[in-house]
Amino acid sequence: METSKRGSAQRFERGSPRVLVAGATGFAGALAAHLLWRHPRFELAGVTGRSDVGARLDELYPRYRVPLRVEELDEDALEDVDAAVVAYPHAAAAPTVGALLHRGARVVDLSADFRLSELETYERWYGAHPRPELLDRAVYGLTELHRERIADAAIVANPGCYPTASVLALAPLARAGLLADVVVDAKQGVSGAGRTASVDTTHLSYTGENIIPYNVAAHRHTPEIEEQLGLLAPATGKGGETGFRPVQFQAHLVPLDQGEMASCYVTPTRAVAAEELVGLFASAYEHEPFVEVVDAPPGVREVRETNFCRIFAATDAHTGKLLVFSAIDNLWKGTSSQAVQDLNVMYGYPETEGLL
Amino acid sequence: METSKRGSAQRFERGSPRVLVAGATGFAGALAAHLLWRHPRFELAGVTGRSDVGARLDELYPRYRVPLRVEELDEDALEDVDAAVVAYPHAAAAPTVGALLHRGARVVDLSADFRLSELETYERWYGAHPRPELLDRAVYGLTELHRERIADAAIVANPGCYPTASVLALAPLARAGLLADVVVDAKQGVSGAGRTASVDTTHLSYTGENIIPYNVAAHRHTPEIEEQLGLLAPATGKGGETGFRPVQFQAHLVPLDQGEMASCYVTPTRAVAAEELVGLFASAYEHEPFVEVVDAPPGVREVRETNFCRIFAATDAHTGKLLVFSAIDNLWKGTSSQAVQDLNVMYGYPETEGLL
Amino acid sequence: METSKRGSAQRFERGSPRVLVAGATGFAGALAAHLLWRHPRFELAGVTGRSDVGARLDELYPRYRVPLRVEELDEDALEDVDAAVVAYPHAAAAPTVGALLHRGARVVDLSADFRLSELETYERWYGAHPRPELLDRAVYGLTELHRERIADAAIVANPGCYPTASVLALAPLARAGLLADVVVDAKQGVSGAGRTASVDTTHLSYTGENIIPYNVAAHRHTPEIEEQLGLLAPATGKGGETGFRPVQFQAHLVPLDQGEMASCYVTPTRAVAAEELVGLFASAYEHEPFVEVVDAPPGVREVRETNFCRIFAATDAHTGKLLVFSAIDNLWKGTSSQAVQDLNVMYGYPETEGLL
Amino acid sequence: METSKRGSAQRFERGSPRVLVAGATGFAGALAAHLLWRHPRFELAGVTGRSDVGARLDELYPRYRVPLRVEELDEDALEDVDAAVVAYPHAAAAPTVGALLHRGARVVDLSADFRLSELETYERWYGAHPRPELLDRAVYGLTELHRERIADAAIVANPGCYPTASVLALAPLARAGLLADVVVDAKQGVSGAGRTASVDTTHLSYTGENIIPYNVAAHRHTPEIEEQLGLLAPATGKGGETGFRPVQFQAHLVPLDQGEMASCYVTPTRAVAAEELVGLFASAYEHEPFVEVVDAPPGVREVRETNFCRIFAATDAHTGKLLVFSAIDNLWKGTSSQAVQDLNVMYGYPETEGLL
Repeated sequence: METSKRGSAQRFERGSPRVLVAGATGFAGALAAHLLWRHPRFELAGVTGRSDVGARLDELYPRYRVPLRVEELDEDALEDVDAAVVAYPHAAAAPTVGALLHRGARVVDLSADFRLSELETYERWYGAHPRPELLDRAVYGLTELHRERIADAAIVANPGCYPTASVLALAPLARAGLLADVVVDAKQGVSGAGRTASVDTTHLSYTGENIIPYNVAAHRHTPEIEEQLGLLAPATGKGGETGFRPVQFQAHLVPLDQGEMASCYVTPTRAVAAEELVGLFASAYEHEPFVEVVDAPPGVREVRETNFCRIFAATDAHTGKLLVFSAIDNLWKGTSSQAVQDLNVMYGYPETEGLL
Repeated sequence: METSKRGSAQRFERGSPRVLVAGATGFAGALAAHLLWRHPRFELAGVTGRSDVGARLDELYPRYRVPLRVEELDEDALEDVDAAVVAYPHAAAAPTVGALLHRGARVVDLSADFRLSELETYERWYGAHPRPELLDRAVYGLTELHRERIADAAIVANPGCYPTASVLALAPLARAGLLADVVVDAKQGVSGAGRTASVDTTHLSYTGENIIPYNVAAHRHTPEIEEQLGLLAPATGKGGETGFRPVQFQAHLVPLDQGEMASCYVTPTRAVAAEELVGLFASAYEHEPFVEVVDAPPGVREVRETNFCRIFAATDAHTGKLLVFSAIDNLWKGTSSQAVQDLNVMYGYPETEGLL
Repeated sequence: METSKRGSAQRFERGSPRVLVAGATGFAGALAAHLLWRHPRFELAGVTGRSDVGARLDELYPRYRVPLRVEELDEDALEDVDAAVVAYPHAAAAPTVGALLHRGARVVDLSADFRLSELETYERWYGAHPRPELLDRAVYGLTELHRERIADAAIVANPGCYPTASVLALAPLARAGLLADVVVDAKQGVSGAGRTASVDTTHLSYTGENIIPYNVAAHRHTPEIEEQLGLLAPATGKGGETGFRPVQFQAHLVPLDQGEMASCYVTPTRAVAAEELVGLFASAYEHEPFVEVVDAPPGVREVRETNFCRIFAATDAHTGKLLVFSAIDNLWKGTSSQAVQDLNVMYGYPETEGLL
Repeated sequence: METSKRGSAQRFERGSPRVLVAGATGFAGALAAHLLWRHPRFELAGVTGRSDVGARLDELYPRYRVPLRVEELDEDALEDVDAAVVAYPHAAAAPTVGALLHRGARVVDLSADFRLSELETYERWYGAHPRPELLDRAVYGLTELHRERIADAAIVANPGCYPTASVLALAPLARAGLLADVVVDAKQGVSGAGRTASVDTTHLSYTGENIIPYNVAAHRHTPEIEEQLGLLAPATGKGGETGFRPVQFQAHLVPLDQGEMASCYVTPTRAVAAEELVGLFASAYEHEPFVEVVDAPPGVREVRETNFCRIFAATDAHTGKLLVFSAIDNLWKGTSSQAVQDLNVMYGYPETEGLL
């Protein structure tokens, strides 16, 4: 593969922050590298991997056209890195995040290691946490909810893709104290299963022409959704309890590559009229550059390969429930472009820089 | 297109009932013709259409290999037809069903015209009913629920595909009086939209790589599901009311051809243990030839081009809800092979005849 | 996974030949097991695998509904096996074929080990042959060409999928001595890459929305196609040489599961009129139960999950070339159903038994 | 659909040329509008359509986020338009092109009306030409071949998608006089069939899981490919004849949305070594910003939603033929982004402006 023309030069300005992508051989890291490579304000300092060391990233991901070689991560040689996107699995991520922090870099971590504030919750779902002492330094990276704290954070815990779609869908209702009972039925393309090939989750002969529920009654993204919604819910009980009930979250694999739809069915705490519902969403997101509130059900193609989240909310007069449909690209807003959105916030750039 | 070898002779035995397919040019009718053509006990008496008259059915549907010409339906020349499958849109179906009955034929009607017992409910969702006087002669054709009445019925109202998957998923819970609140999130392939090409519902450039909620808060299959579940629910109030609450039903289009998954989220009227749940489904379906209760989430590929419905039920300890996943092929068990299953019952043949 | 209803009993008649499937965990072997399980004249004697021993085949392949456990192949305990389908990779197959022959079983081998008559050709493409002394006992299993010899063969070498489609497309022209120059551009779905998951050949995120040429200028099916066409070509030179020129064969991966199209571009040795061309194909295949000569370009969906090969031939007045398009299901007629077709021939059953 | 944030402002500089898109409701015109809307140097002056007048373009094409209303084309009110992209079918395009020229606008025409220099050839394939007197003012818009004349052209005839991929693949061989015999087997996604829904060409239930040859021995792109290759071929005979032989071109529909692969099989006029072949392609395209010569077979995903053409060439020692594989996005480099590339050339901007 020759050096692609497009990749022959980065576009960044002199003096731009240098950002490393650790774990660039997986889907999330590779896309982060692609987005940073073409970003006008960041310099892609390098790409590292735990596999494929020595390969060119544009051999592994020809369409991303990043002509850098995958290196081994040398934690002792990180002096000139200002920031990093860490794209490791949970538990593997935290030690590397710690080493990067130690070298003075700010980190956007794509794993689950810093998404949950309670160590106990983390350990119930993921096992032992390798660096629990760092939990306090992390801010949850859903930009629309925690923009101000992200600006100064040492660690930004990039949200899971399902929590991104679900929390953006439910936040206006959570803030208004309307969530009595919540079912989230989510559907996602195969890229959510990552690059590792598997007969059961990625083989076209299995996933094609199929619809498959998975992780029934046990998805790790559930506590993350519940924590974020809980933070938004108004205190109702004594002692500040929100009285928030558990979320029923269920994921499905459907035959496409990138795209995710969270269909949310909410029993409200009180009757809600259509106009009120529309108003809640309009006011919640009118100034958000990446949340599009629309008046018809969105398809995930409308947001493919973008950082947009497109949301449609409706009341059902028959059942009294509120319905909210939230569409994102699981690899972009659900993962890597959201990381770049956060980096823009962390360095004071316009939030949309490099993302439109 | 030459006469295909396979289609050169039907397999039926002499003296078999002669079955007409009216409306054989649509997806449902064409599949019914295919299934009857290869059925050992029925003779396919002819195929009629409201379009494509004169074309050979194996030109329109090469893979079905039915080498008959599409004829116009001549209601005055139906003397030698014992039964018919009518595959017309709602409102267009009822008059033809009436004419067929008048000529002495028994009918399986694939439309919605005879699925709802209350005329008022029908008219709210579909408009005026052309032949309301026939409603009393119809039996709802979900074989597993109404087998005995189907055996003698003049009109069998073949269920909608969504009600088939949903009612089979929920029937054991309905019978046990466990349905306090029900959300059904259904996903279906593009064949559900029928043969008529449309940019918004069938074009691969729109439906491919997409997930699209449709008919939000207004799907016509809702009353059908509610009526069938209501029939099963034990009377709890005075006067026989079941206290059954409305069903939240929501459909989604996903990028495949044939296949349908109903994901059901049930808030039970009381706590239900996993063993009890498993027992309810096992006993409900142990003698059913076409319902497979499985112990892992099914994919719709497992039932593609079969008359099987594959069901998995689970409890969620976190939320207390019951989850039921029901997979069918929307064109087979959801439509045309269920019609043949009913015909088998109507003529006293083994229910699986021609369907395995 | 409970025992599926359908799988609860085989249908074979008492005294039917007992057929083993060795290597039933791959796509080809699993489908062969499925076809034999539902075949009225063969008893599926067992399924063996080199992996997944102890698993139920209907867990690995739910849609095939074969409720047998995968066993290890014990070559010393094969007394009661009349025949076997061996679905191993090349080089691994030949020793097992030898052991089965030794125990008195007849074998249909799905690998390449016995497809080429010249040892030297085999070794150039596949490496050392483990059992060259058996080559003489094998007959090439393209039923339409070698039916009579297959009837008595000890070993039937099931053709590769590409040779099946290509040779059926070109045989009438080869016999007529019309092949001066041949280009075969073949396209196939992902199932052709087999069950082993791989980022580069089966991952939906790579193969979806893609078209990929592979094995450029080096596909192992080329010599197989050339040998079979060479056998058909009339001798033209002294010493019986046919003057047959090499075939340009090229494979492509396209985003579907099962299906294969061979598009053949032939420069004829002399001008050929359209009527002559039509006549050649009509007479070649008029009595073949599984070759459908059609008068419009076929799509591979028309033959999916069937043993049919559908062929369309045309002349191009502009270039003088002959065009032939040949559609099969690579797993069925291209592999496993063709093996059953051969077994039918070997045991004197109607060739279509169990395949319509 | 609310005005999307992204679409709320164009990015162009003051004084930028104003470009109209006529026929913006089809796939090609809508993409041209999208590319111009986000282009830094052009102002999208308006979008017109022959259908859907009054609709917002971002309702018809939500993912393109162009918030303009579709207008009727008023040829009398075009004074302030500097240039136009005309995306009409052939024969409908020429009169509008003439009207635009008359008003002083330069035109990139996406139809076939100005691609063929010989009126007779046009009329053989397309019927009567509405404005033959304009043929002399048109330049064929394959930028890589006609860059200099495009810079000053009044009409740029944007190439067909198949000629784009095919001619870029074969041009280096044509210039070297190496084309003795040419077969082009092309495969394309469903978007090539355009927005008009049709059971036979765009319905997912027909095109999904399918491979379909079409326009057998009769594709309109053949003469376009032949004319362009003929222009490149060195004169070999007296009177300047090139002795160029007809091209065998064949198109296939495969189940994806955007993407096109031209697989070219060339019998060369003399033996060509691998090094020479590599050298021919390297030198032909080393300075081209949008042609990537690679050393392994490309997949069309690698160029999806880009203006790149990715080419791999190889020799086949077995047959002596030359193989060239050329991948483009049929809607981008095959249609609309190539139009923008031409507009960049016409206005003296960097060729890559707005396209990387």
